[in-house]
Amino acid sequence: MKIGFFGVGHMGGPMAANLVKAGHEVVAFDLMPALLETVVQEGARAASSAVDAVAGVDVVVSMLPSAGAVRGLYLGGQDKVDGGVLSHIDKSALIIDCSTIDADTARDVAAIAQEQGRVMIDAPVSGGVGGAKAGTLTFICGGPEDAIDRARPVLECMGAQVFRAGDNGAGQLAKICNNMLLAIHMIGTAEALQMGADHGLDPAVLSDIMKASSGDNWSLDKYNPWPGVMENVPSSKDYEGGFAVKLMNKDLGLALQAGLSTQSATPMGNLAKSLYAAHGNHGYAEKDFSSIQRFFRHKESK
Amino acid sequence: MKIGFFGVGHMGGPMAANLVKAGHEVVAFDLMPALLETVVQEGARAASSAVDAVAGVDVVVSMLPSAGAVRGLYLGGQDKVDGGVLSHIDKSALIIDCSTIDADTARDVAAIAQEQGRVMIDAPVSGGVGGAKAGTLTFICGGPEDAIDRARPVLECMGAQVFRAGDNGAGQLAKICNNMLLAIHMIGTAEALQMGADHGLDPAVLSDIMKASSGDNWSLDKYNPWPGVMENVPSSKDYEGGFAVKLMNKDLGLALQAGLSTQSATPMGNLAKSLYAAHGNHGYAEKDFSSIQRFFRHKESK
Amino acid sequence: MKIGFFGVGHMGGPMAANLVKAGHEVVAFDLMPALLETVVQEGARAASSAVDAVAGVDVVVSMLPSAGAVRGLYLGGQDKVDGGVLSHIDKSALIIDCSTIDADTARDVAAIAQEQGRVMIDAPVSGGVGGAKAGTLTFICGGPEDAIDRARPVLECMGAQVFRAGDNGAGQLAKICNNMLLAIHMIGTAEALQMGADHGLDPAVLSDIMKASSGDNWSLDKYNPWPGVMENVPSSKDYEGGFAVKLMNKDLGLALQAGLSTQSATPMGNLAKSLYAAHGNHGYAEKDFSSIQRFFRHKESK
Amino acid sequence: MKIGFFGVGHMGGPMAANLVKAGHEVVAFDLMPALLETVVQEGARAASSAVDAVAGVDVVVSMLPSAGAVRGLYLGGQDKVDGGVLSHIDKSALIIDCSTIDADTARDVAAIAQEQGRVMIDAPVSGGVGGAKAGTLTFICGGPEDAIDRARPVLECMGAQVFRAGDNGAGQLAKICNNMLLAIHMIGTAEALQMGADHGLDPAVLSDIMKASSGDNWSLDKYNPWPGVMENVPSSKDYEGGFAVKLMNKDLGLALQAGLSTQSATPMGNLAKSLYAAHGNHGYAEKDFSSIQRFFRHKESK
Repeated sequence: MKIGFFGVGHMGGPMAANLVKAGHEVVAFDLMPALLETVVQEGARAASSAVDAVAGVDVVVSMLPSAGAVRGLYLGGQDKVDGGVLSHIDKSALIIDCSTIDADTARDVAAIAQEQGRVMIDAPVSGGVGGAKAGTLTFICGGPEDAIDRARPVLECMGAQVFRAGDNGAGQLAKICNNMLLAIHMIGTAEALQMGADHGLDPAVLSDIMKASSGDNWSLDKYNPWPGVMENVPSSKDYEGGFAVKLMNKDLGLALQAGLSTQSATPMGNLAKSLYAAHGNHGYAEKDFSSIQRFFRHKESK
Repeated sequence: MKIGFFGVGHMGGPMAANLVKAGHEVVAFDLMPALLETVVQEGARAASSAVDAVAGVDVVVSMLPSAGAVRGLYLGGQDKVDGGVLSHIDKSALIIDCSTIDADTARDVAAIAQEQGRVMIDAPVSGGVGGAKAGTLTFICGGPEDAIDRARPVLECMGAQVFRAGDNGAGQLAKICNNMLLAIHMIGTAEALQMGADHGLDPAVLSDIMKASSGDNWSLDKYNPWPGVMENVPSSKDYEGGFAVKLMNKDLGLALQAGLSTQSATPMGNLAKSLYAAHGNHGYAEKDFSSIQRFFRHKESK
Repeated sequence: MKIGFFGVGHMGGPMAANLVKAGHEVVAFDLMPALLETVVQEGARAASSAVDAVAGVDVVVSMLPSAGAVRGLYLGGQDKVDGGVLSHIDKSALIIDCSTIDADTARDVAAIAQEQGRVMIDAPVSGGVGGAKAGTLTFICGGPEDAIDRARPVLECMGAQVFRAGDNGAGQLAKICNNMLLAIHMIGTAEALQMGADHGLDPAVLSDIMKASSGDNWSLDKYNPWPGVMENVPSSKDYEGGFAVKLMNKDLGLALQAGLSTQSATPMGNLAKSLYAAHGNHGYAEKDFSSIQRFFRHKESK
Repeated sequence: MKIGFFGVGHMGGPMAANLVKAGHEVVAFDLMPALLETVVQEGARAASSAVDAVAGVDVVVSMLPSAGAVRGLYLGGQDKVDGGVLSHIDKSALIIDCSTIDADTARDVAAIAQEQGRVMIDAPVSGGVGGAKAGTLTFICGGPEDAIDRARPVLECMGAQVFRAGDNGAGQLAKICNNMLLAIHMIGTAEALQMGADHGLDPAVLSDIMKASSGDNWSLDKYNPWPGVMENVPSSKDYEGGFAVKLMNKDLGLALQAGLSTQSATPMGNLAKSLYAAHGNHGYAEKDFSSIQRFFRHKESK
């Protein structure tokens, strides 16, 4: 299949490369030319323009950093419904937006596509840069069942699991719920490990105990925030790489806004947002989100 | 081996029964005669007194509801170091306290035992009533390595895993860290499921998605708080059975006190304590702790 | 002066009446005719339409429940900049919006007014229905200094104090900061009183002590949430009247969104939002916000 | 009157000096001789021993840093009820403990005094070092009414107001409730000011607005945490002097423990404890508690 791919950064780059590896013809576009070079080396073709990237494609995949970028790409900018690439996409093509954005924007853009006779789904991912490279991402989709079924073989070139959360926007909502819960147990894990260490326990031993007990969770088990407990996770690399605090703050912001619209009470999620906001402001915005462990350290007097 | 067993309630009863099943001679004692009857039916002998229960035993196991009860049993009451059963236990016997209590009391009683030439370890459990019945508990031990090695074959009659967290008291500390983390991800899971449901997602589908993603945790996976998502968990039985809110409040109280003694910051743990305290006060003290899901429901106007 | 007044509900009604009492000619408009009748009895004239209400006026005052309502009144609806009353207002008139809305909308509408050669300020209030009736409101204004100086004599007919927080939108921001802080000390006061009562202290005595000490705050002093401690406050009237939980939730939502846009960490504000969201969902949405006291009560078992 | 005074540090020193100024004969004792020198210069006599300090006195006043110190002074140490000065105090003397400690210890020591025929009250203070020097402290007393009436003329030499919260221990409880509420509105004030500043508002102007509105509270009004808004408060002196973060952490620890004993839910208090624990661990333990403002600052990247 011929696939137009928008956004080839930390996540989108390896995803596009995996599509190439699976035998697809990938035409990539990105506002940053340096990023395009990398995927060209992987075998993609660099589009000369956004419109060029969608010419004659069977599938469009986008992986963009914000709702504004998604709206801008497809519709041509805030409050506009022209000037974007949407109207240039063949009506038989399937449009898959993998960006993590608010559910309202996802629904709005998909609805405009549908009015035009085009089919679009939201398919944000879980699994991070590691999952993108390894092709083991989880896709959390929202949209009509048949559209998601059509997307499945494409998504399975980039990931291990494809879920349908519900109608358009539901993929975003489920992703946001997941990341809110991730933030909560990451912080909880960090404070439990610090409290254990403060009392003389070995964080590696305490981790083993809690993994075998009811405290078990993904942050403890797959992404331990205490340096040295696990290899090849950001905590053992000075919290470099991984999923930046500023990105977690973006997702927690989406979670808070989702909660506001339904008056859902999310006390743990709200506290997680506060702590990550403070942690980002304390100089950790670019570090991996497991660096929240450092928030709990005992430091020297000012 | 001959084993004296103190405290045969919801947890201790099945644990004592499993020791009988493994071929040990169990002499049980409890302040509530009705509880003794049950274990006698399982093959244990009812002791006529606490002192009778330790006569000639190789191992003493206790499973009591509070630090005061542990101190009272072994030492004879607050501020006293006599009148308890400790001095009646054979010096060659091994003393295993499985109660969940504060680490300071665990250390104090073990230190007094040691001064008398007796060996005592703390071995609180994770796994709940279900684990106690199935013999799949996790024992989280604190004490000398050789003592824990001696305890291992006895503990393995009642559980699947035996960990050494460190010296005396460390078992309690690790257990408390674990349960604090459990409370955190249980509440986080409940609020994520409610937020999803408020937006029209199916909690069962959302659970599947998060289990396959970075939000995964024990509460979601093994003890889902949304009614009907899993069978045979308290949420599907009107939150009856399981681990009562009042017991979670006790453990969270221990966690807060542990944090106070080291000035550890535990924001998520402190919030969890607040929410479980409120939830207990709202009439849920006797319900399973996964009933925190109801805290997030939208109810009718007052 | 001739004044067009939009929105004559719980707050706007008494405010319009105070303008009449001060000798101004008030032409009122509201989508709910029943509300208009009340102010007509106070001496205002009912406009036949929104456009009629601004015909020939020197000043326009609006007191509306949401950003959408403000945008709709002045601009004619979401994404539109016509069809609203703005273009019908005389360019020499001063436009004062007293609604509590987000700062972005306040800035947007004022900017559009300015492009048209019109002058608009935001002037949300503090003081509640009581302050509106007594004419003792505090106006927290954003806009050009000279515009606020022009507004001052009008505002002083309805309130006791007029502050300029900064440029357009700053009035909204300051109001939101204030109400976030109000929610925080209201909840803090309620939990302190409950903890004292749980330990046998008399909440009235404890209130007197804290009022004379460093715990003093407006909620304790002017709006005590414990029934019977003060007369003529909602807590002594079964939490009827006053400032509804749902309105506090609206303002806390604005506060959270304001924090998101600047990555400000507001842990206390976020927790306050969570607790008020839960409290509203527990059936208290229509009750006065001091009813949060009931959240802390010890209730009977479920 | 002849007064024995124990503990002449930051608080006790100026308090003892005010007793001297009021014409009383003060015999002071402190474990740190350097502190004694200062009060001797103010006109007190240095006792040669703790027992010497109570010889023939009409009143005993103690101002000590912890429950352990109070127990040690009066009873002679943990688990002991002799060796302390209590039994050396004349039975006609009145014993006033101004330390801030847990209510249980206050009740215990007073009960032992009563068994011996002695009269003791708890009288912790609010007002800080400034209030101690100026003689404007608030005394929050627990004990029999007639004992507090006897204490009143002595306390009024050191403070402006004397409250009776209830029986023995109630003074401590009320003090702890007050300081918990203080911590809550201090943090709330700091985050509101930071959020305003992040949006371009002047913290001094925002402070004026909130002081005139429903956000008003002691932290904002008397102890503004933003540097430069008020003169002569710690925020304008690099957060030196005042009430140290570590002392606020001690008081919040007492509040948490008080809440645990009655299962009172104190979400705001628990969060305040977490934030002050983190802030202390971030190097601010010795700084004034209004330095929590710095927790909210935006700092450079790590």
